[in-house]
Amino acid sequence: MGMTMTQKILAHHAKMDEVKAGQLIKVKLDLVLGNDITTPVAINEFNKIGLNNVFDKNKIAIVPDHFTPNKDIKSAEQCKYVREFVKKMEIKNYFEVGRMGIEHALIPEKGLAVCGDVVIGADSHTCTYGALGAFSTGIGSTDMAAGMATGEAWFKVPEAIKFVLKGKLTKWVSGKDVILHIIGMIGVDGALYKSMEFTGEGVSSLTMDDRFTICNMAIEAGAKNGIFPVDENTINYVKEHSKKNYTVYEADSDAEYSKVIEIDLSKIRPTVAFPHIPENTKTIDEVGDIKIDQVVIGSCTNGRIGDLRAAASILKGRKVNENVRAIIFPATQAIYLQAMKEGLIEIFIEAGAVVSTPTCGPCLGGHMGILAEGERAVSTTNRNFVGRMGHVKSEVYLASPEVAAASAVTGKISSPEEVVK
Amino acid sequence: MGMTMTQKILAHHAKMDEVKAGQLIKVKLDLVLGNDITTPVAINEFNKIGLNNVFDKNKIAIVPDHFTPNKDIKSAEQCKYVREFVKKMEIKNYFEVGRMGIEHALIPEKGLAVCGDVVIGADSHTCTYGALGAFSTGIGSTDMAAGMATGEAWFKVPEAIKFVLKGKLTKWVSGKDVILHIIGMIGVDGALYKSMEFTGEGVSSLTMDDRFTICNMAIEAGAKNGIFPVDENTINYVKEHSKKNYTVYEADSDAEYSKVIEIDLSKIRPTVAFPHIPENTKTIDEVGDIKIDQVVIGSCTNGRIGDLRAAASILKGRKVNENVRAIIFPATQAIYLQAMKEGLIEIFIEAGAVVSTPTCGPCLGGHMGILAEGERAVSTTNRNFVGRMGHVKSEVYLASPEVAAASAVTGKISSPEEVVK
Repeated sequence: MGMTMTQKILAHHAKMDEVKAGQLIKVKLDLVLGNDITTPVAINEFNKIGLNNVFDKNKIAIVPDHFTPNKDIKSAEQCKYVREFVKKMEIKNYFEVGRMGIEHALIPEKGLAVCGDVVIGADSHTCTYGALGAFSTGIGSTDMAAGMATGEAWFKVPEAIKFVLKGKLTKWVSGKDVILHIIGMIGVDGALYKSMEFTGEGVSSLTMDDRFTICNMAIEAGAKNGIFPVDENTINYVKEHSKKNYTVYEADSDAEYSKVIEIDLSKIRPTVAFPHIPENTKTIDEVGDIKIDQVVIGSCTNGRIGDLRAAASILKGRKVNENVRAIIFPATQAIYLQAMKEGLIEIFIEAGAVVSTPTCGPCLGGHMGILAEGERAVSTTNRNFVGRMGHVKSEVYLASPEVAAASAVTGKISSPEEVVK
Repeated sequence: MGMTMTQKILAHHAKMDEVKAGQLIKVKLDLVLGNDITTPVAINEFNKIGLNNVFDKNKIAIVPDHFTPNKDIKSAEQCKYVREFVKKMEIKNYFEVGRMGIEHALIPEKGLAVCGDVVIGADSHTCTYGALGAFSTGIGSTDMAAGMATGEAWFKVPEAIKFVLKGKLTKWVSGKDVILHIIGMIGVDGALYKSMEFTGEGVSSLTMDDRFTICNMAIEAGAKNGIFPVDENTINYVKEHSKKNYTVYEADSDAEYSKVIEIDLSKIRPTVAFPHIPENTKTIDEVGDIKIDQVVIGSCTNGRIGDLRAAASILKGRKVNENVRAIIFPATQAIYLQAMKEGLIEIFIEAGAVVSTPTCGPCLGGHMGILAEGERAVSTTNRNFVGRMGHVKSEVYLASPEVAAASAVTGKISSPEEVVK
């Protein structure tokens, strides 16, 4: 019996010829990741082990992105604690405020994750790097501590669902719509502890930004990881961003999948996840008349340059509705700079939007755009749970940058087609 | 006996031929200002009066700039409360997040304060507009409520200190150094309930941004207001920004001053106010070796285009020190846009600085750059009291944008001369 793409990566990192779904294995890690919220807890656990060194100074990345620039004294103290640990352990990949970005956009951009890698991160959206053909997954702070100490982690080998993509996305439809469509179809536990392996001729038409967005939200279907095959786009991306060696793995032709689902990309409509669960999706044609108070464009899900270009193409020469606060977060400083050079930031500010320095900010109800009671946001982020972005009686509607930008203009959840005629 | 410039403005607004220091008078208001912290309290007081209308929808300005974009649920609720009041009262000059700026930079920019006006604002740095030859001063929320209801306020006519400026500032010295130098000289109660009237041939060489900075910090010497004579610079600024009628007042030649102080601008050195009080000043030549963790450039004191140009001239082609977080806040969206068009934002980001959307943020320990225990910041803001920017054991050193930018590069309090050779 053959192995899935994920299983082959895991087997190789466990130095085994073959692994099977359900098997418990110990694998070598190529990268251990943490942020300003999870790393302090991991440091406490690491210190209990009593080591003076981490397993490899070059294979740990720490990004203070959640409550930064420091929201309050507590977050300032957490960042200070992390900074002191980084200095003591001489961790190389620490990215200070001003030289950073949202971790899941920054790690690929800095070339720290490449095809064939095994990456763990103390943040649930670590699954993003599956877009590069890597196995990457979110773990807890204790596993991060053990990873920093040993460079290894235990996994139960996941089974997989195969998503066979065909056709091409139509205008105004992007990766976010694909993953929302899938989560709407299979539910938030539809891929529980499974790999979501994307294949098919439809893959080649998806940009890397689309693929990052799709893998980023694999966890919202309960998946252990999401993963794309490596193609020319992937190789180009990796060569542009990284000097690391990479390995291309392919699923065996006789790999076993617990399910095979065909997705016709050309049929997907702009899709919105209604409160308070990402599976509660409607197409833009079914949303009805929903007034909004805030729009958030950014985050590890949709803060990349392609996302900003899409939003700018709609906001250009238009104004944010007077009843709406539109908050735009380029996901990294490099993306911010690129967006500025392309004139996108100017478009956003002339439209009356806020442009923020990179931070996770409002996505998790952290800061920089929290909702009051009864307020509604259209957001390109990844979760719309009760109280996710503020008051327990506020509402978050998940959507693409295209839908978010169109909604910012009209003041209600809207299709780009309504705005750009 | 003649009147000071301030007294003449107040007399005119009280419809009196003459007023004297110490006299209690009732004056007509040209503008009543509030922010997201002070306006909710003022609304509660206003509601107690039982009126259905404010005195004039066009003469009230409300700017949610302190804890915005909403820092947390409480700040979101406060902004919502303000927004509902604004709608109900049809207040015209409400500036939503994304279309705003820090109030004391925004009000002159939007042309809402001009020469000869009387302005009250429920924020202590309302004294900023004295740069335009207006009488403007900070009041409490209760006075804001009464002002919104009646369009009038009671004042005790202040006496004045006359500052006779001569000479010109030297390279790397700007308005911030002038006012820090003065506060160092007279102390934080040196002008208690007095007007600080700036005159002399030195005035003409000060830019409007210099004058805004100087008047902004009049309150830090305890003054009721700071005020500059109206010259060609002022008129040009007002005509560029406002369609309001303006009136030029001049102090009588026989006006009485409680003190006259001569300041030779050419002798002022870059000046830093050490913790924990603005009068605790040293020149840059006396500061010694003080390592820093954070630099803040922005605020109602020093977030204008001239300030950003000065900072950029030092940061251009250089990098923020690895131990420093440098956080730069253009004071308004228009300044942000201008700075972007001039390439300043690009310089900041390439240097490794954070560029934030306009907010009061860290200045008052609000958000977006709070200090942990033991951390030190060089900041272009206006107050360095204990705990002002975070932990009670953190320290704030007040300085000009020039000194702040130089310090960001070196990682310790530094003169621009050290960096730009």
